[in-house]
Amino acid sequence: MLSGLKNYPINISAIVSMADDGGSTGVLRDELGVLPPGDVRQCLVALSNSSENLRELMNYRFEEGGLKGHSFGNLFLSALEKIEKSFSAGVEEATKILNVSGEVIPVVDKEVNLFMVLNNGKILRGENEINHNTEIEKVGIKKIYLEPQVPASKKAIQRILAADVIVIGPGNHYCSIVPNFLVKGIAEAIKKSKAKVIYNCNLVNKSGHTENFSLDDYVNSINSCIGKERIDFVTFNSKKPNQQSIEKYEKGKSILVGFDKSAIGKRNYRVIQADVLSGKKPKFSSADALSRQRAFIRHDSNKLAKLIMMILELGEYENFIKEIN
Amino acid sequence: MLSGLKNYPINISAIVSMADDGGSTGVLRDELGVLPPGDVRQCLVALSNSSENLRELMNYRFEEGGLKGHSFGNLFLSALEKIEKSFSAGVEEATKILNVSGEVIPVVDKEVNLFMVLNNGKILRGENEINHNTEIEKVGIKKIYLEPQVPASKKAIQRILAADVIVIGPGNHYCSIVPNFLVKGIAEAIKKSKAKVIYNCNLVNKSGHTENFSLDDYVNSINSCIGKERIDFVTFNSKKPNQQSIEKYEKGKSILVGFDKSAIGKRNYRVIQADVLSGKKPKFSSADALSRQRAFIRHDSNKLAKLIMMILELGEYENFIKEIN
Repeated sequence: MLSGLKNYPINISAIVSMADDGGSTGVLRDELGVLPPGDVRQCLVALSNSSENLRELMNYRFEEGGLKGHSFGNLFLSALEKIEKSFSAGVEEATKILNVSGEVIPVVDKEVNLFMVLNNGKILRGENEINHNTEIEKVGIKKIYLEPQVPASKKAIQRILAADVIVIGPGNHYCSIVPNFLVKGIAEAIKKSKAKVIYNCNLVNKSGHTENFSLDDYVNSINSCIGKERIDFVTFNSKKPNQQSIEKYEKGKSILVGFDKSAIGKRNYRVIQADVLSGKKPKFSSADALSRQRAFIRHDSNKLAKLIMMILELGEYENFIKEIN
Repeated sequence: MLSGLKNYPINISAIVSMADDGGSTGVLRDELGVLPPGDVRQCLVALSNSSENLRELMNYRFEEGGLKGHSFGNLFLSALEKIEKSFSAGVEEATKILNVSGEVIPVVDKEVNLFMVLNNGKILRGENEINHNTEIEKVGIKKIYLEPQVPASKKAIQRILAADVIVIGPGNHYCSIVPNFLVKGIAEAIKKSKAKVIYNCNLVNKSGHTENFSLDDYVNSINSCIGKERIDFVTFNSKKPNQQSIEKYEKGKSILVGFDKSAIGKRNYRVIQADVLSGKKPKFSSADALSRQRAFIRHDSNKLAKLIMMILELGEYENFIKEIN
């Protein structure tokens, strides 16, 4: 989405969850005591105007020896954090080096971990453990929280309060989307903000997490995190993926997100259906175990960005209609 | 020297030895099968016009975990080599990213190792083993060679043939300076080239290697590598380092390079004596064991560069004198 949006004349602030603790990021957190660089790296690369080569370098993963599985960009951010003595300052420096359009804001600048308590009393510790658990939906969630309870980055709060539009998702629901709202101050700021709120609904449900979710379940889950029915628009894909891709997912029990037609006209938010599906095949790295599990069914960044811009203009058009009425 | 020279309006080609196999570089050679990035990195950083922060990042060494001791810049070059499929192509890409004045040319683009046979038949394998051996001078060298015998980079040969001036040293004599001349084609090119040849004599002898070397011994050693008395000028430091620094070295049996006054007027090269000594204390990294052993008595890059430029102009002045005579 970000790599599509950066081509429009808008000011982008990407606020990024800091609860990630899997893969290369997890190793770096453990061994260097740095904050998780993985998601921030992906946002920086998406917003970067540097050469294709530099962006490829940032996503390069070492394939052998003691460095195996480490993404170069993660090492880059971890080294900058060490030099600058704070993750945020390191990210700001990276923003300059990578010639980034807009800014990338870690939602917190302290170490936090994601915890989930299931209805059977089981406690899942850390994003990685939650991500790989497959009984979350079946057992049900009693509580999801961050520890320690650190306040959100001031900059993140400022940007939310000043935004014209707040765009949420797509992403791993419990591991990437929800953790942002659990940070002290974020939900409050979204409630206060006068921005339009757009939610980009996921294309595919996650096995064991949101396997039976429909569009409305995602929206309700996020609204309940915010503590208010705050979502104004939902983008929802209208193009059917090819059968081969769907089968790949169904083996892994991930299925397309359902849309309840009987709710049309009864929703407190508008669903904008459009073809936002990518036709490109994603690249896989043999050093990145995660990449093999990643989406075969993906958003097209340009289509999604265009749709978001249309929703923004739709807003202007509606204001205009109001004014002349 | 390079960081001083880059401020002058000249075209710099830094030709770098590829026999390094110690420290972070050695680990990367072993584990990733890449060419040794360490010396190339230092030249790139010296010639870079990027921000101080980016240059600091390139020299940053990780201090914990599985990455301990790795220089970020080495990882950077190794990742670029993997992406670009050749070390030279990776270095060219790095040159763009780091906004380098001039160019850095690895003397070979294949893996080579340095070997030394001592007069007692002992074979030292690899730059690191040679570097740490302390009986080289006592026993004497029968042979020093690279294996395999790969040809020099074409670009390196071209630049030597087209140069106005070839500058050699300072540096670790057997481990950094001599290996360049052992590459097939380099000595021949220096013999053919019409360039003036300047040798920056080391300030300090290396214990067990060149412990009893005088200026003339260094010059003779290099000339014999080239196969011709090719050195025209030698820069030699005239400023005495402070006693504390000298004592630090003398404990480790490294002493100031001697100058034989009785040879004045008998040399086939001109010795330019000047204060080229740095007054700055070098920085040490706790993660870089080598940095603690590095020079307390160092060249000042700006003073040395200025002296080299004066020698260049001296040449023009002398040609002018010849013309009017």
